[in-house]
Amino acid sequence: MSSTLSSSQVTVLAPATVANVVCGFDVLGFALHEPYDTMRMRLTDKPGVTIINKDDYNLPTQAERNVAGGALLALLRDATDVVGFEVEITKAIMPGSGIGSSAASAAGAVVGANHLLGNRYSPAELVRFAMYGEEIASGVQHADNIAPCIYGGVTLIRATQPLDIVPLAAPPLWVTVVHPQIEVRTSDARDILKKQVLLKDAIRQWGNVGGLVAGLLKSDYALIGRSLEDVIIEPVRSILIPGFADVKLEAKKAGALGGGISGSGPSIFMLSQDEDTARQVEAGMSETYTRLGIDFHTYVTTINSEGVRVVIE
Amino acid sequence: MSSTLSSSQVTVLAPATVANVVCGFDVLGFALHEPYDTMRMRLTDKPGVTIINKDDYNLPTQAERNVAGGALLALLRDATDVVGFEVEITKAIMPGSGIGSSAASAAGAVVGANHLLGNRYSPAELVRFAMYGEEIASGVQHADNIAPCIYGGVTLIRATQPLDIVPLAAPPLWVTVVHPQIEVRTSDARDILKKQVLLKDAIRQWGNVGGLVAGLLKSDYALIGRSLEDVIIEPVRSILIPGFADVKLEAKKAGALGGGISGSGPSIFMLSQDEDTARQVEAGMSETYTRLGIDFHTYVTTINSEGVRVVIE
Repeated sequence: MSSTLSSSQVTVLAPATVANVVCGFDVLGFALHEPYDTMRMRLTDKPGVTIINKDDYNLPTQAERNVAGGALLALLRDATDVVGFEVEITKAIMPGSGIGSSAASAAGAVVGANHLLGNRYSPAELVRFAMYGEEIASGVQHADNIAPCIYGGVTLIRATQPLDIVPLAAPPLWVTVVHPQIEVRTSDARDILKKQVLLKDAIRQWGNVGGLVAGLLKSDYALIGRSLEDVIIEPVRSILIPGFADVKLEAKKAGALGGGISGSGPSIFMLSQDEDTARQVEAGMSETYTRLGIDFHTYVTTINSEGVRVVIE
Repeated sequence: MSSTLSSSQVTVLAPATVANVVCGFDVLGFALHEPYDTMRMRLTDKPGVTIINKDDYNLPTQAERNVAGGALLALLRDATDVVGFEVEITKAIMPGSGIGSSAASAAGAVVGANHLLGNRYSPAELVRFAMYGEEIASGVQHADNIAPCIYGGVTLIRATQPLDIVPLAAPPLWVTVVHPQIEVRTSDARDILKKQVLLKDAIRQWGNVGGLVAGLLKSDYALIGRSLEDVIIEPVRSILIPGFADVKLEAKKAGALGGGISGSGPSIFMLSQDEDTARQVEAGMSETYTRLGIDFHTYVTTINSEGVRVVIE
């Protein structure tokens, strides 16, 4: 988010995000500095939303089938004085990577639009518009990537109805992400989960959620590390990601505080206290996927406390 | 907890505690200023633990069947240089009330003993000894009342094996407790719970646990209030407590932030931001039980950040 000055054209940098965050399934998420999508936006006299894709992902250009388009159409239903937007999108966050590619499109679009309109909407309102975009991508209006993308930093979605977003202060954290080039369909990742869980596992999970939130707010790295444990989702979903156990083992050996599946995968993220460790974690992750013969990308970055960034031209 | 000076005799004030704390089933607890048990303790040449009960509760005097005795015997198994303790107990916290009566006995005993021994044990070690006392009362070595009784304030039990206690700073909070004079057996309160819960309910619960921990650490009263929601335990257990729904409704009407069952009941606690509200909550609770013709006690007090207090004589 940025200043209240409006302008006729803006460039928006919309970052990747990590949702779920191990024990925090469906409630926790944080924004990254890299990778990020670039979007150029302007107000138009042409009604509705004009989408221009500048990358090779062949995403839909029809506004109501495009994530950024869907989010902007939701905003336009409220901003009845506005005719239309044109959005030129250059995605760097690969769709399906599990680091909030669709959330970046949706969040970037509404933050950019809001800037063009003199920042008339609150972050919470922008999240609600952007959730219509997420719905186009996944069929579900979830906010766990959208919220950190718009607010920046780490966010807790305490509840969804009504939506209650709690920004959480966090100490400096380095993030290593590996994206193995395999496909995990979000629907498969959803379907594989059991509808019921053992109460004793749920208790352990909410002990860890409490510990993680406390660790972040108290800047207690050791507590953050101990709390990065998932006894419910990870044991089930990790079977969809080849090499997961090895990557985690190598990362912990390299000194990572902990980590796990990013979103619904296939990306895996690890948190570290400093850059050196984060780079050693990257080496360990890379070794695993090189050995398995699976192509991969890695990112070594930090938590992005700003979220979507608007660059005025 | 107090100074490192030792003395030959101490008086210990061991406070009541509220465990579970709505969404924080089995993981959260806090200490109260009132009521509290009074224990006079001294080292003896007589081996083992001598229990002298000064109240009318007819609790066992045989050390291995007494909660304070069991905790002290656990400590004596470690402190092999010590012969024995004599403990004179005047309980003000009624056994079975759901506000940590047994935890007060166990925690008070080990904190007092530690003082007599020059404070050789850490709070975490004392919790472990005291858990042997809790086992005598409930058959389970749980720490959710013991930990806040020894540490004071609000505590999170992030995990039990190994035990991980996280003290949580909290803003000033008033607590209203009503203890309806009915019996809820801890074993019944346990047996009534389902072994499995819906994943969607568990997610909502850990969203609330995250929100409550954040609300406490950020001194955000509104967030604390919104997070005091329990979709798993309360709907089941509250049927064991006549008048529960009415008490909660009256308390919210009177301005309470929220609250619920204390421990496994029958006591009900409500949190308020100031004393006036807490007293109006007390009036609402009292009216309900007067109308139902059920005898009751009430307490209006604050969170006790000190925990067990040792008075040197």
